[in-house]
This record gives sequence, structure tokens and C-alpha cells, in this order.
Amino acid sequence: MKKLEELGEFGLIDRIKSQTSLKNTTSFVGIGDDAAVIDQGSHYSLLSTDLMVEGVHFDLAYHPLKHLGYKAVAVNVSDIAAMNGIPKQITVSIAISNRFGLAAVDELYEGIHLGCEAYNVDLVGGDTTASRAGIVISVSVLGEVTKDKLVLRSGSRENDILCVTGDLGAAYMGVQVLEREKQEFLANPNMQPQLENKSYLVGKQLKPDARMDIIHELAEKGVVPTSMMDISDGLASEILHLSKASGNGFTVFFDNIPIENLTLETSTEFNINPVVAVVNGGEDYELLMTIKQEDYENIKGILDLTPIGFVNNEKMNWLVLNSGEKTEIKAPGWK
Amino acid sequence: MKKLEELGEFGLIDRIKSQTSLKNTTSFVGIGDDAAVIDQGSHYSLLSTDLMVEGVHFDLAYHPLKHLGYKAVAVNVSDIAAMNGIPKQITVSIAISNRFGLAAVDELYEGIHLGCEAYNVDLVGGDTTASRAGIVISVSVLGEVTKDKLVLRSGSRENDILCVTGDLGAAYMGVQVLEREKQEFLANPNMQPQLENKSYLVGKQLKPDARMDIIHELAEKGVVPTSMMDISDGLASEILHLSKASGNGFTVFFDNIPIENLTLETSTEFNINPVVAVVNGGEDYELLMTIKQEDYENIKGILDLTPIGFVNNEKMNWLVLNSGEKTEIKAPGWK
Repeated sequence: MKKLEELGEFGLIDRIKSQTSLKNTTSFVGIGDDAAVIDQGSHYSLLSTDLMVEGVHFDLAYHPLKHLGYKAVAVNVSDIAAMNGIPKQITVSIAISNRFGLAAVDELYEGIHLGCEAYNVDLVGGDTTASRAGIVISVSVLGEVTKDKLVLRSGSRENDILCVTGDLGAAYMGVQVLEREKQEFLANPNMQPQLENKSYLVGKQLKPDARMDIIHELAEKGVVPTSMMDISDGLASEILHLSKASGNGFTVFFDNIPIENLTLETSTEFNINPVVAVVNGGEDYELLMTIKQEDYENIKGILDLTPIGFVNNEKMNWLVLNSGEKTEIKAPGWK
Repeated sequence: MKKLEELGEFGLIDRIKSQTSLKNTTSFVGIGDDAAVIDQGSHYSLLSTDLMVEGVHFDLAYHPLKHLGYKAVAVNVSDIAAMNGIPKQITVSIAISNRFGLAAVDELYEGIHLGCEAYNVDLVGGDTTASRAGIVISVSVLGEVTKDKLVLRSGSRENDILCVTGDLGAAYMGVQVLEREKQEFLANPNMQPQLENKSYLVGKQLKPDARMDIIHELAEKGVVPTSMMDISDGLASEILHLSKASGNGFTVFFDNIPIENLTLETSTEFNINPVVAVVNGGEDYELLMTIKQEDYENIKGILDLTPIGFVNNEKMNWLVLNSGEKTEIKAPGWK
């Protein structure tokens, strides 16, 4: 029998999905999209959940609890955005060891409340419990979408335009910067962290925002993407998800991907290939979507939405580098 | 500033609730009941979540992973039952350390799937991640209830009859039996566990069932309880919750509480006061409810539902012992 590491997270999810069947008529979409879709008659509810574990998803050496609370809300809201929906309610469960005091819990919830305000969601429930080691945060989010606006991962068609919001690679470079500062601090505890000129990168890592602004702009322009998901594991990984869900192949032009100068400069400073940061680096929580060609004129007014490729007719996924070199996008290894 | 231990779990929940306001019109009931209530227009959705942490909520020395998966589903379904609702969908997130193999994950999900079948719920999503220590399971459940059948903790009125399903104290004695066997096994690893004649108690602890059967029976009899919750933390604790939510006091007759002979015998064997096991012991996942006096005739046909007291007009909570002695039910200490 295979080991967990060999199967990988997505292999494990596929395995669980293959053992699962949907019996209730209200279960419209189950495992395999950014959120489950529940038929409420007049509209769909969207349900998603994320688990964040200390030492795996965050390091309290550099992740302030307030930012962590905000991020826990934002990454869940991002899953609702990825379905073209509006988030409405969240539940928050925390397991926390008694090395933390009440002040720490207050700080975490301060961030959670700020996240709720930012995205207009209500904290309606949760669970609190002791933990033997560190903090675990589990957030579930319930959202809404009208039936004609639901966007799945599977809906792209040949020649659709592939677009991305914001810029990519910043969160990945942010964690490199934070890790370097942590190592320097451990070597010399009197050191002052040098993060001022890296604040954009660090901010994208510690306090990402869900792109609800783009969802509202798309609605204003009357554009419904044909497929969409958020970028949590990295562009390459998400392209493969969209490809698998739709049966289509994608061609991505590296030159067209929006990248902040600071991201490029910092990747040079760290001797990291910018392609790695931008294409494989995760946690940007930007939206990746396909739109019909006829909607191209309509999205032109959305400043923070950039075409980066298209749905090809080869059923293969290509990254075209600036040099013109074409490499196949393949599954990254297990992290 | 107070410490977490001084505040206690319920103090912490009250604190979080006091910092929270509901802004979305669809958020009908937030923190403080067994599930949040979301207005979907034609009906309510019910949303609840539970976090189970290894070493806090379960001990893998005696909790088989398959039972654990089933229990994770059942305790969430129980929260939907407590609102008089029908569970429909769940999400399951797990953090698992790499000391576990794929076989362990399969066993856990086997139990989850059995739970889904037993309660007719669909597994529609979740999250899987690494963990630095042990297993964490977070389940969220979405249920449904028609608007005229919703039951909150707050609805009891003076002279309503207090009823409980099943019997109490068995799960508490079950964990005592399991702990004793564990200690004996640690002292002598060649020992065979002696659990045959305690299987009812052990079963209530390791694989409790949500009382959806009673929810369906109440619907058949046309009875809507005036208030309800499930017994996860112990009868005394839940009485105080119902009391606080409604502003009413409750009188409970110990003599009327259904207790299995095996529970009483085992409490004698362990030199544990049965009042402690029955009134303070938690995890029975039975339902505690109040019904109107005029519904008494209608519930008589429900075999597994027993009147154990009433809503008094004193705004105080009393436990009347078999001796006739009356003691006030007070908040238990922080566990």
C-alpha cells in the first residue's frame, strides 16, 4: 500500500472523492471545486473550509496573531470568490495550547473580526478547545450565488482567455524574506528586522486579501467567467486543476504575468529563479479565470485583471517563456 | 488580565459572542445555540462545526480510527438534531502527522462514510494537511429545517415538561472502563482487554449515535419541542445553558433520569457516585428538550423519550435526589 507522501495531498483528495457519492438532491457540487454547491431552491449556497496548523501553515515567530486571524478569514472568503459568490457567514474553531494567554486569543479574534468587517461576513459559530501543541484554526464559510452566476473550475472552452488578478510571486518571496529574518534573529537576537522595503511581499504573505473587489467589478460589467479558482498552491498547480476539471489544455505566456518589480528584485537578491517564485510559489490568493473572447472588451476596464494566456486545442498545458521556449506544465512534487 | 483557564470554555465563548454583531440579514441566529441559523427565504439552513483533537477529545490507545470517523460525523449531526433539523452535507478537514500511513487515513474515512450513510448526509468537501503532532479532525455540517419547526435553546416556558432521550452516564462510565484497561495494558502488554460485558458503555463512548430517530418520531407525532439541545458536556451543564438562554429555572428529578443498570453497577465497581456519572458526565449525545404540557399525551408513544423534570417559576435550577434532598445545579469547574 502506498504511503501518504507518495499519494500527495491531491492524490489523497482524489482517493476520498472516488469513495464518495452524493445522495441528497440538494448536493449540487461536492468535493473537487473551491467550494461545495448546495441547491437552496431560489439560489445556491457555497460551503468551504480551511484548516491552518501552526508549524505547517504559519510560524508564530513572524506571523502576528492578528494577521493570522485576518488571513484565516480571507483565505476562506477567497474560496467563495472563486465560485463568483458572496460570502455571508463563517464559523471559526480554534485549538490552542495553554502556553497562550487570553491576550493571544483576543489578538487572534481581533484579526478575525477585522476580516469579517472587510468582507462583510458574520461570525456565527465555532468551537474552542485545548490543544497539546500549538494553534490549529479551522474556518468554514457559507456564501451565496444566484444560479446563473455560479462559476466552476470545469467551464472553460477552447479559445477562452485566461486571466489573473493582481500580481504573482509576491507571497512566495515574502516567506523567503521572513525566513531569512528569522534565521538572522535566531543567530543574533538583538538584531532589528529589516523588513521596511519588503513590506509589500511580507504583507502578501502575512495578510493576503481575497479578491472580492474583482467579483464585484465583474458583476458590474456583466461578465461571468467560464471557469475560475483561486491561487493558493501556485499558478502551475492551479492550471493543472483547471485543465483536469475542464478536459482542456492551457497556454500561459510568462511575459504577460503581472509581477511586481520588488518580487523580481528580491528573487535576484535571493538567487531564486523568478519563474519558480511566480509559477510554483503559492499563497497569492489571486483569482485565475477564463472568460469568453467576446467578454474581452468588457474586462478591459478592470485594471487589476490581466490576460496571461488562452485555452488551447492541444489538451496539453504549456508555459511559454520570454525567450519563446515552451515547457510543459507538469504536476509539482509533494510538498 | 484573566487567564484562559480562569475564563473557561463557556466564558471564552461568551467573550467572543459579546464582541460579535450580525450584519447580514440572512444571519438569523449566531453564536450560542447548537447551530447557527441562516435564512434561505423558503427555509432555514443550520450550520455547526466541531473540532476534535487527539489527546484532548480522543485517545488512539483505545479509540479505533473507524469509530472516530463515525463519531466525528455523529456529534455534528447531533447539533443539527438539537435544532429539530435534518442534516444534509458535511465537510471534513483532517490534519495528520506522517507517523500515520494511508491505511490509517482509509480507516478514518471508512468510519466517516459509515456515518454519512447512517445519517443520510453527503461529504461535500474538506481540507487535508500535515500535522506536527497527532490527528485533528474538524467537521462542519449543514442542515435544513422548515421555518415553523426550528427549535432554539431559548424557547421554554414555565411548566413545560423537561425530557431526555435514551439514558445518561453510560459514555462517562465507558471512558472510565477504557482508561482502566489502558493502564492495565501499559502495565502488562500481554493482557487481553476485558471489555465484553462493558460493551454498551464502551460503545456509547467510542461510537455514539445522534438521535435523529427521535427527531423523525417527534415530526410523526406532530410535536415541536419548545427548546432543545444535545448533551455533550453533561446534563448539569446543559440545564444551565437552557436556563440562561430562556431565563427560566429547571427542576430535575434524579429518580426519573433513565440510567442503564450496567452504568449503575459499573459506577459502584469504580467507586464513583452515580450522580457524578449521570449529571456531570458528558458525551452521551442524547437530546434534552422541553415540551408543552398539552403535548405530553403525544410523546407517550415515543419509547425512548422520558420526562425528567419541568420548568419551574423560581428562576433557579434544582436537582431533586431520590432522598428528596434538593441541591442547586451550579456551573461545573473548568475541565
